[in-house]
Amino acid sequence: MQGQNQQQAYDRGITIFSPDGRLYQVEYAREAVKRGTASIGVRTPEGVVLVVDKRTRSPLLEGSSVEKLHKVDDHVGAASAGHVADARQLIDFARQQSQVERVRYDEPIGVRTLTKEVTDHIQQYTQVGGARPFGVALLVAGVEDGEPRLFETDPSGTSNEWKAVAIGSNRGDIQEFLEDEYETDLDVDGGIDLALRALNEGRDGALQGEGVGVAVVDAETGTYRELEAEESQSYIDDIEAVETDDEETEE
Amino acid sequence: MQGQNQQQAYDRGITIFSPDGRLYQVEYAREAVKRGTASIGVRTPEGVVLVVDKRTRSPLLEGSSVEKLHKVDDHVGAASAGHVADARQLIDFARQQSQVERVRYDEPIGVRTLTKEVTDHIQQYTQVGGARPFGVALLVAGVEDGEPRLFETDPSGTSNEWKAVAIGSNRGDIQEFLEDEYETDLDVDGGIDLALRALNEGRDGALQGEGVGVAVVDAETGTYRELEAEESQSYIDDIEAVETDDEETEE
Amino acid sequence: MQGQNQQQAYDRGITIFSPDGRLYQVEYAREAVKRGTASIGVRTPEGVVLVVDKRTRSPLLEGSSVEKLHKVDDHVGAASAGHVADARQLIDFARQQSQVERVRYDEPIGVRTLTKEVTDHIQQYTQVGGARPFGVALLVAGVEDGEPRLFETDPSGTSNEWKAVAIGSNRGDIQEFLEDEYETDLDVDGGIDLALRALNEGRDGALQGEGVGVAVVDAETGTYRELEAEESQSYIDDIEAVETDDEETEE
Amino acid sequence: MQGQNQQQAYDRGITIFSPDGRLYQVEYAREAVKRGTASIGVRTPEGVVLVVDKRTRSPLLEGSSVEKLHKVDDHVGAASAGHVADARQLIDFARQQSQVERVRYDEPIGVRTLTKEVTDHIQQYTQVGGARPFGVALLVAGVEDGEPRLFETDPSGTSNEWKAVAIGSNRGDIQEFLEDEYETDLDVDGGIDLALRALNEGRDGALQGEGVGVAVVDAETGTYRELEAEESQSYIDDIEAVETDDEETEE
Amino acid sequence: MQGQNQQQAYDRGITIFSPDGRLYQVEYAREAVKRGTASIGVRTPEGVVLVVDKRTRSPLLEGSSVEKLHKVDDHVGAASAGHVADARQLIDFARQQSQVERVRYDEPIGVRTLTKEVTDHIQQYTQVGGARPFGVALLVAGVEDGEPRLFETDPSGTSNEWKAVAIGSNRGDIQEFLEDEYETDLDVDGGIDLALRALNEGRDGALQGEGVGVAVVDAETGTYRELEAEESQSYIDDIEAVETDDEETEE
Amino acid sequence: MQGQNQQQAYDRGITIFSPDGRLYQVEYAREAVKRGTASIGVRTPEGVVLVVDKRTRSPLLEGSSVEKLHKVDDHVGAASAGHVADARQLIDFARQQSQVERVRYDEPIGVRTLTKEVTDHIQQYTQVGGARPFGVALLVAGVEDGEPRLFETDPSGTSNEWKAVAIGSNRGDIQEFLEDEYETDLDVDGGIDLALRALNEGRDGALQGEGVGVAVVDAETGTYRELEAEESQSYIDDIEAVETDDEETEE
Amino acid sequence: MQGQNQQQAYDRGITIFSPDGRLYQVEYAREAVKRGTASIGVRTPEGVVLVVDKRTRSPLLEGSSVEKLHKVDDHVGAASAGHVADARQLIDFARQQSQVERVRYDEPIGVRTLTKEVTDHIQQYTQVGGARPFGVALLVAGVEDGEPRLFETDPSGTSNEWKAVAIGSNRGDIQEFLEDEYETDLDVDGGIDLALRALNEGRDGALQGEGVGVAVVDAETGTYRELEAEESQSYIDDIEAVETDDEETEE
Repeated sequence: MQGQNQQQAYDRGITIFSPDGRLYQVEYAREAVKRGTASIGVRTPEGVVLVVDKRTRSPLLEGSSVEKLHKVDDHVGAASAGHVADARQLIDFARQQSQVERVRYDEPIGVRTLTKEVTDHIQQYTQVGGARPFGVALLVAGVEDGEPRLFETDPSGTSNEWKAVAIGSNRGDIQEFLEDEYETDLDVDGGIDLALRALNEGRDGALQGEGVGVAVVDAETGTYRELEAEESQSYIDDIEAVETDDEETEE
Repeated sequence: MQGQNQQQAYDRGITIFSPDGRLYQVEYAREAVKRGTASIGVRTPEGVVLVVDKRTRSPLLEGSSVEKLHKVDDHVGAASAGHVADARQLIDFARQQSQVERVRYDEPIGVRTLTKEVTDHIQQYTQVGGARPFGVALLVAGVEDGEPRLFETDPSGTSNEWKAVAIGSNRGDIQEFLEDEYETDLDVDGGIDLALRALNEGRDGALQGEGVGVAVVDAETGTYRELEAEESQSYIDDIEAVETDDEETEE
Repeated sequence: MQGQNQQQAYDRGITIFSPDGRLYQVEYAREAVKRGTASIGVRTPEGVVLVVDKRTRSPLLEGSSVEKLHKVDDHVGAASAGHVADARQLIDFARQQSQVERVRYDEPIGVRTLTKEVTDHIQQYTQVGGARPFGVALLVAGVEDGEPRLFETDPSGTSNEWKAVAIGSNRGDIQEFLEDEYETDLDVDGGIDLALRALNEGRDGALQGEGVGVAVVDAETGTYRELEAEESQSYIDDIEAVETDDEETEE
Repeated sequence: MQGQNQQQAYDRGITIFSPDGRLYQVEYAREAVKRGTASIGVRTPEGVVLVVDKRTRSPLLEGSSVEKLHKVDDHVGAASAGHVADARQLIDFARQQSQVERVRYDEPIGVRTLTKEVTDHIQQYTQVGGARPFGVALLVAGVEDGEPRLFETDPSGTSNEWKAVAIGSNRGDIQEFLEDEYETDLDVDGGIDLALRALNEGRDGALQGEGVGVAVVDAETGTYRELEAEESQSYIDDIEAVETDDEETEE
Repeated sequence: MQGQNQQQAYDRGITIFSPDGRLYQVEYAREAVKRGTASIGVRTPEGVVLVVDKRTRSPLLEGSSVEKLHKVDDHVGAASAGHVADARQLIDFARQQSQVERVRYDEPIGVRTLTKEVTDHIQQYTQVGGARPFGVALLVAGVEDGEPRLFETDPSGTSNEWKAVAIGSNRGDIQEFLEDEYETDLDVDGGIDLALRALNEGRDGALQGEGVGVAVVDAETGTYRELEAEESQSYIDDIEAVETDDEETEE
Repeated sequence: MQGQNQQQAYDRGITIFSPDGRLYQVEYAREAVKRGTASIGVRTPEGVVLVVDKRTRSPLLEGSSVEKLHKVDDHVGAASAGHVADARQLIDFARQQSQVERVRYDEPIGVRTLTKEVTDHIQQYTQVGGARPFGVALLVAGVEDGEPRLFETDPSGTSNEWKAVAIGSNRGDIQEFLEDEYETDLDVDGGIDLALRALNEGRDGALQGEGVGVAVVDAETGTYRELEAEESQSYIDDIEAVETDDEETEE
Repeated sequence: MQGQNQQQAYDRGITIFSPDGRLYQVEYAREAVKRGTASIGVRTPEGVVLVVDKRTRSPLLEGSSVEKLHKVDDHVGAASAGHVADARQLIDFARQQSQVERVRYDEPIGVRTLTKEVTDHIQQYTQVGGARPFGVALLVAGVEDGEPRLFETDPSGTSNEWKAVAIGSNRGDIQEFLEDEYETDLDVDGGIDLALRALNEGRDGALQGEGVGVAVVDAETGTYRELEAEESQSYIDDIEAVETDDEETEE
């Protein structure tokens, strides 16, 4: 009880420090991320894979309108988890930064630079009063000088680069799965396969092409592409075939 | 009790996160939507249908002045549920965006683009202090490149595209009815019929032309049109005829 | 007790939503309207009638200075109930809008358009912080394209069009009386008669020309006119004559 | 107790409505008016009389520096009750409005128009945050088109026109006295006499020329004039002579 | 207890009215004045005398740096009591107003006009939020058209003109002494003598030239002058001589 | 308990008065000064001496980086006690004022004028909201027209001139020592000696050149100079020699 | 309990003083620094060494993206501990200041000057409302006029120069180790060795090249350089070899 009252005292008004040096509003914004369905990124030498959970709450909802995968520029895409409308703001911001860079320097923005611009923007909302932090995390995937890059942004404005990472619901389980199964010499197909299996691990229902979004930023072409539902389904079918085999083998 | 006190602590002042990552002011704004009478949208290949509950609390009130159906542009209409004056602000904003687009590009605004502009506007009121969120949801119906589109906006600034959807009072029951009865090959008449029956399901009193508003955005002509009370009544009469038949058959 | 405490938690600072989606400050502003003496509007095919309760608290007070009836433009008048100084602000705003319209388009402002401008202004005070809502309701009566129109504005910024309506003290009883007695084919005299009898119903003291204000917007001439005290008294005398007759008849 | 706690909850921060639709800060500002010594206005066909209580708390204080009577323009004066420094702000504002009118239209400002300007200014401080209401009431006395006018402003921004009225300490008793004794055909001398006797009624100590301020706006000349202490004293002497007679007669 | 809690509820944030119409922050600012050492003004036909208590808390403190007497303009001086740094702000403001007047009209500012400017400035800090009231009172002494004038300003922004007045610590006792001893036909020497004796009455320690400041605005020359410590001491010596005589006489 | 609760009620938000007329935030800022190590100023006819306690909390810390002595201009220096970063802001402000004066009038700023500029700056932070007071006191030492001057500024914005004064930790004891030992005809060496002995009195550890800073503004040359550690040490050695003698003598 | 409640009362809203003169928000920001992994700086005559703890929480995280070492300018680097996104803001600010200096004066910024600019920026966030303090400490290492300099900044805006210093987690233990082992005549290799051993002391896991970042600002070349992971590992290997020897020797 005591601890709870004490906590309540530091989490209102503008974002301020608690006695133990934490920013509660930022931590609560991280909870908002956890409330969102999962998004997974896997980096391979051939490109970066983004896989998102798009299950809809009604069969009448158009899955294509669930905003979890976003093209930021020709060579950069992003997956989000958390507060949907907040994500859209950050994606818009990222797109503007990309365009500014193209206009100013006549070349594509670096993935790291872009991520830094976005996280600087996020940080402002954690320090200056009059607004709440963004309740969303992003995976920023792109190709920079021919190299695949995968960054994560969190509500504190911190960014990290990953080989493979999950955000959103069940992050813990999925990340553990990725750590167990990730191999550095995956090809893109292997990356998609790994990400889909990881997503399956983190949710109880079976995968379906409609309820999953897959995107790839290809290292060679340097372009972002979202897969059609049928393409996704064929990857899922492969997984299930293997799992069925496994199960049979287990017997 | 404990839970209740805890909840109260996070829902005042500017919109901030609760410890479990929720935005209470946004959730309360959703309650404001539920307090409004229902509006229903049904998308058919031939066009999008909007049906609204316009029952008035006094026979002396002019039903035509109940602001639930709004023409946004020649090819776009909207139905609202929730705080009436808030809805008017969003509709005004949407009309301005449409006009700006026409002036700037000399062509009608896309339905998806328009919805995004509106939801970006809504999102600002959930993050920046000094104002409360909008207590209203909208159904944005229109035709884009000959295709009927139906979007929903909610107080968080999220938008979704639907085949058929309800907002406002009794959303749960109506949506369930829509999910049971919706067919993808409906014509406009079938869409109006479905929406009226869904509305009837969600309210206890019998339908009447005066107490119901119906609008259609026709795919072919690409224009928004509100039906006269007599037109609406003829659709209602058909429904009642069928239901009476059904009841008789049931016996 | 619990309910009361809970309510208190959501009605201070800027106008925010309560957990059940209500805007308490707006509802309290409606209470401010109820604290004002009644105003009644009756629409007839020949014109719109406004009747207001102007009883003064001291015989030394000049009844003419009680601000309840307001000329907005040649063809539009308004009656108010609630916070007197707030009403004056809204009337001033309405007059400015009328003048702007005349200057810009060289024609009288539409009654519906004018009402919308006023309610948009009211809505701002319910959403943006730093000010309280307006504690006043208006009846806006006018003629538009030869048609009599009667609108009501409330503190939420909602407007409705009415055949006959009451605002302020005893609204409930008066409105019920109007619903029972209203007929669509009233002439202006009949409208004044109905409004005065409705006002009499809603207050305990007997009517007197001094304590009542009557105005008419005539459909044919399209002009707003306030009746002199003697004119009002003659209408009152007629009513009393009839009522005395009725009473005698009842015996 | 309960009622008291509830009241306390609605009277801080910016001026907001209480659940029963009242503006407590405005009501408290009215209490500030009651804490001030009384001011009385009496309108006669020949001109308007203002009488103020100027008793000082020390014989070393210069009575002339007690700011209760104010010349606003040649043809308008004002008497105040309540917060002295607030009154000075409103008087300054009124003087500026008068000058602006003279510069713009080359004619004296109307008394009603002037009062409206002042009360609009007052109203702003009751609705917009960041400042408290004015804790003062004014009697605005003047001549307009040869007609004597007497207006009262209160802290809510409401104005009323009066035949005779009191503000400040003991308003209730004095107003009652005025209602009993006022006659419409008073001359200016009779008006001064009535106001002084009313003031005497409302305070316990005997009147004295030094402790009373008297001003007259004459209908014929249309000019505001403050009486010298000796002139005031002669009026007081007359009253006392009469009262002594009365007392003797009573025996 | 109850009263105390109630009081606490109305004295924070911006300056607002309490239920009984008081401005607590202004009243507390008056307490800040009482915490300051006393300052006394005495007006005589020959000029205005200001006497201030400058006792220092350490022998190492330079008495000349105790800011209690201030030259405002050639013909105006001021004595302060209360918050020292606040006094300096008001004196700076007064000096600027004097200079502006000289530049604009090429003549010395009137003492009453100057005082009004200062009190208008003070009033703003009692009504508009975002700052606290000034915790200081001033005695403004000067010569206007050959006439000596003595005004007092208080933290509410009220000004009064006095024959003789005290501000600061022990105001009550000193003012009572002044009321008993003041004579209208004092010369400047008599005024200094009266003020010093009054100061002696209000404090327990014996007077000393170092611990007292004396200034005079001479009616004839119209100039402000501060006395040297020795001059002050000679006045003090005279008083003590008389008092010793009195004591001997009393025996 | 009661007193404590009462106190807590008046010390938050913007700086406001307590019921007894105190500014708690200013008083707490004075506590911040007391938390700083001591600084001492001694004025002699030959110049002003500043001595500061620079003991560091780690042998790895460069003593020279402890900001307690500051050159403000050629002829002015300052010593600070309290919040280090706040001191730096005030010193920067003082330096700017000095430069502005030089640029504008082509002559060194007066020490009193400079101190006034600084204290006016400090006062603003005690009256206007949105910032806290400065938690630092300064000793401003300089030469003006050949005269040594020594001023103290405190967090309220008050300034005082001193013969000798201490700020910071153990101010009481050190000031008492200075009052006992100060002589008006000290030379600079004597002033340094006095200040070092006073500092020794106020702290328990023995003096050391590294842990002490000494600066002098020489009256003749009119320049500020900080002593090297060895110079300081030689003064300390002299003191210790004397004290050892004293002790021996005491036996 | 009492103490805890009292503390809670002074640490919210804008940064204000507690009754004992402390700034709690600044102290809590220092706790945020302690929550960060450690960074260590060691100054030697040959250059300044920065060593940071970069252990990552997942093997899939790219260690190179952990932002703890930052190049500020050719001749200046910085290590941070605490809130990562805050650190990035300060580093960006420092880089801008460096560039401004180069553009304006065509020479590298002084390390002390740069540190002062950064700490002035930090101080603003501790005094002016509307934002929280920076939750980060920096070690600023550089070469100025051929001299190695090492400064620390803390959340209060204080800076200190050090021979060797630690910030972040386990500061106490590491600093103690540095105080025991530091020698003034270390070469760069010795400095790296000392810093790594100190870091090892402060954390329980064994050092690894991947989990440690090392940078050097060389006095001779005046340039900042970050070591590759293999270089770091070779230093670690040396330490472990020695420690193993030591352990063996101990037996």
